Amino acid sequence: MLATVLLSYLAPPPHIDEVRLKKLLVKLSEFGRDAEGGVSRLGFSEEDRAARAWVMEKMKEAGLRVWVDPAANIHGLRAGTDPSLPVILFGSHIDTVPHGGNFDGNVGSMGALEVMLSLQDRKVVTRHPLEMIVWSDEEGVHYDKGVFGSRAVTRGPYPGELELRDAEGVSLADWIRRYGLDPGRIGDARLDPGKIVAYLELHIEQGAILFRGGIQIGVVEGIVGVDLFRVTVEGFANHAGTTPMGERRDALAAAARLVQAVREEVMARPGSQVGNVGWMQVMPGAPNVVPGLVRMPIEIRALDREVLDELIARIRRRAAVIAADAGVAVSIERQASDEPALADARLRDLIETTAREAGFTTLRLPSGAGHDAQSLERIGVPIGMIFVPSREGISHSPREWSEWENCARGAEVLYRVITALDQN
Amino acid sequence: MLATVLLSYLAPPPHIDEVRLKKLLVKLSEFGRDAEGGVSRLGFSEEDRAARAWVMEKMKEAGLRVWVDPAANIHGLRAGTDPSLPVILFGSHIDTVPHGGNFDGNVGSMGALEVMLSLQDRKVVTRHPLEMIVWSDEEGVHYDKGVFGSRAVTRGPYPGELELRDAEGVSLADWIRRYGLDPGRIGDARLDPGKIVAYLELHIEQGAILFRGGIQIGVVEGIVGVDLFRVTVEGFANHAGTTPMGERRDALAAAARLVQAVREEVMARPGSQVGNVGWMQVMPGAPNVVPGLVRMPIEIRALDREVLDELIARIRRRAAVIAADAGVAVSIERQASDEPALADARLRDLIETTAREAGFTTLRLPSGAGHDAQSLERIGVPIGMIFVPSREGISHSPREWSEWENCARGAEVLYRVITALDQN
Repeated sequence: MLATVLLSYLAPPPHIDEVRLKKLLVKLSEFGRDAEGGVSRLGFSEEDRAARAWVMEKMKEAGLRVWVDPAANIHGLRAGTDPSLPVILFGSHIDTVPHGGNFDGNVGSMGALEVMLSLQDRKVVTRHPLEMIVWSDEEGVHYDKGVFGSRAVTRGPYPGELELRDAEGVSLADWIRRYGLDPGRIGDARLDPGKIVAYLELHIEQGAILFRGGIQIGVVEGIVGVDLFRVTVEGFANHAGTTPMGERRDALAAAARLVQAVREEVMARPGSQVGNVGWMQVMPGAPNVVPGLVRMPIEIRALDREVLDELIARIRRRAAVIAADAGVAVSIERQASDEPALADARLRDLIETTAREAGFTTLRLPSGAGHDAQSLERIGVPIGMIFVPSREGISHSPREWSEWENCARGAEVLYRVITALDQN
Repeated sequence: MLATVLLSYLAPPPHIDEVRLKKLLVKLSEFGRDAEGGVSRLGFSEEDRAARAWVMEKMKEAGLRVWVDPAANIHGLRAGTDPSLPVILFGSHIDTVPHGGNFDGNVGSMGALEVMLSLQDRKVVTRHPLEMIVWSDEEGVHYDKGVFGSRAVTRGPYPGELELRDAEGVSLADWIRRYGLDPGRIGDARLDPGKIVAYLELHIEQGAILFRGGIQIGVVEGIVGVDLFRVTVEGFANHAGTTPMGERRDALAAAARLVQAVREEVMARPGSQVGNVGWMQVMPGAPNVVPGLVRMPIEIRALDREVLDELIARIRRRAAVIAADAGVAVSIERQASDEPALADARLRDLIETTAREAGFTTLRLPSGAGHDAQSLERIGVPIGMIFVPSREGISHSPREWSEWENCARGAEVLYRVITALDQN
C-alpha cells in the first residue's frame, strides 16, 4: 500500500489532459441528451449522425486522415515513419442504448481522440501507423444485432442483416445510404488481420468490481462467452381447487426448481462465470389454474468454452431429475452462442505493468459484457482492454458515472501502451 | 366389496329415468354449442336466455309454478300439503365458461328437473313445498364475479356490481332488464333462511378423486375457503454479465424459492388443502438483465379457516427467511378471501346413508371449487352437496364428461334425500 502511494508520487507526469478529455466527453453528451440527463443516441439515427459529424471534425483537428468505411465505422489515421509496418488500432463506439449514459463507449472513443491530440501536442513520431476507430452501432438496439460495425469488417454482416427493417420500415442498408455510404461495398471494408499489430479498447467496466475494490484500472482477461438457451417446461394445466397436490404436473413448480438449479450449478465452482434466468412466461396464467406451460431463457457466461459446456451439461442433468420428479417435460435448446474472446497474454501483461508504472492500482477481471474487441479477436488480431470503474456498477442508465480522473487514468494507460507497443 | 355388490342387487328400483335425464342434458347442450362439441353459454347472453326459456317450459311441463326473481334466478315450486312448512330447496346453474363442457351445472339443474318429473309421474305428495332453482351467472365470467344469482338473493350484490360494464359497454343491470326483469327490485328477492329446510345441490366433482377411485357418489364435506394473496418480490435489476453472482439481488431467484416454499408448506400437513402460484410477471424481463421485480399470486384453499390462517403464516415466515437471505423485499397482501362453507353434518350423513342404501359406492371429499351452495350456507341455510365423477377430472373444457349412469345415480340420491327430508 505504502509502495503504491510512493510509486504514484514518483510516477512521471501524465500525457493526458484530463480537462480536455472531460470537455470532449461533456460536448459529446449533448448529442441525443434526454430529460433525465442521460442520452438516447442509437446507432443509425439522426442523433448519432450529428455526433459523428462533430467527432470527425475533432479527429481532423487532431491531424488525422479521416474516412468512413461502408459499414459506417469512422477511421482516423496518423502516419508512422515506416509505411510498411502494420497499424496499431484503438477506439470504441459512441452509439448508446435508449436512455443510456454518457460514459459507456464514449470514454474509449474520446480517450482515443485525446491520445491522438496529446501525441500531436508533443509532436511524437511513431514507427507504426496509429489508427483510431469509432465503430458503428455497437449496442445493436436499432436492429437487435450487436457490434455491427466491427462484425461487418471482420466476419461480415449476418445473412440478411442489411435487409432488416426497423419500426418505421427503414432497412439497415437504407440507413447506411442515409449516412452517405454504399452498403453494396461492405465487402471491400474487410480488415486484414495481418496488417494490424493489436487492437486496444478503453471502456468503463459496467460492473461494480473495480468500484467496490477502490481500484483505478481493470486489466481485462477477456470477454466472456455467452450461451443463451430457450427452455420449455411442459406440465398439465388443471383446476387449482379440485386437483390434489400429489396429482399436479405443475410447470411453474418445476421451473422454479430449475431456476434454483441454474444458480446453484453456476455457484458450485470457483470462478467468475455467471448465469441468469431473466424472464418467465407462465401459461395459461390464472390464479386458480395450475400452470401447464412455462417458457424461460437460461443465459450463462464464462471466459472458457469448457466451463460453458460443462455448466449446461450439469444444468441439463438437474433438469432431467426435476422433470422425472415433477411429471413434466423439460426441453433446453441452444438459441444463440457468443464464443469467449481472450485478451492477448502479452498485451494483458503490458497493460498491467504500464498501469502500475503510472502509479495506478490494478485488478485483473473478465468483461461480462460484449465489446467490439471480440470481433477483432475472432479474426486473430491480438486484443487488449483497459477498464475504468463504474460508480456502483451502474450502466446503460442516465445514472452511469465514471470519475473524470479515472477516465484520464484509463486514457493515460492507453497512451503508454500504444507508445510502448510502437517500440517493439 | 361383496357386501356392496349384494347391496346393489338388493337395492329398490330407481326413481330416476336415466334415459329422460340424458335427453334433457343432450337437448340443453344445444344452446351455445361450439365447434369442438363444447359450449359457450355465458351468464347473461343470448345463448343463456334461449336455454332458460326452454328450461322454464320444461319446468312448467313438470307441473311447477315457475317465476324469475329480479336477480334472474329461475324458481319452480311444487306445493306440499302443509303450506306453513318451510321449503326444501335444490338446484344448480346452467351458465358455462367460454368453451366449457356439458355437465358442470347442467347435471344438477337437469337432475333437479328429473326429480320433479319423477315425483309428478308417481303422483308423490309431500308435506313440505319443494322448490327447484336455476341460479343465474354462477360462473361469473361475464362480469368477473362468481355465484351472482345466489349471492344477490342471500347477501346482496357487491357494491357497484350492477353498474359493472362488459366489453360492449352493457351493464349487468342492462342485462337484467334485457331478461325482462327490474334490477331496482333486487332487494325484494332476498331469501329468508327461516323459510328453507335445506339447500341440496347435485354437481360434477370437477376433479379426479372419484374417477380415479372408481367411486360413484361423492359426499361433500364442504366447499373450501379460498384466500388469494398478491405477492411482490423486489430485488435490484442489473446487468447479467457484469454483476457477480454473490452481489445479485435477483427477484426471480427469490420468487422461485417462494414458489417451492408454498408447495412444501401446503404438503407438509395431512389433509386436502391445496396451494397454487398460477402466474408470474418478471421485470424488466430480458435474458441479459438480472430480474429486479417479480409479481405473482398465491392462492390457498382449505375446509378450515384455521388451516388457511396457519398456512399463510408459515408461508410468510418462509418468505421472510428468503428475503433476508437473497437481499430482496417480499410483500404478501391479501387480495380476496372466500370463507369455507361446511356441509350440514346431518345432511352429509343422510346423503351418505341414502347413497349406500341405493347400492352406490361413496366417498367423503371436499369441494375444491366454489358453488352456489356456499351463498346459502352464509345465511345459515343447512347445505348438502352430492358429487358424481368427472372423467379424468377434466372440467371447464369440451372434454368434460360424466357417465350417464352416474348422473342418474346422483339424481337418484337427490330424489331420495328430498323425500327422506320431507318425512322429518
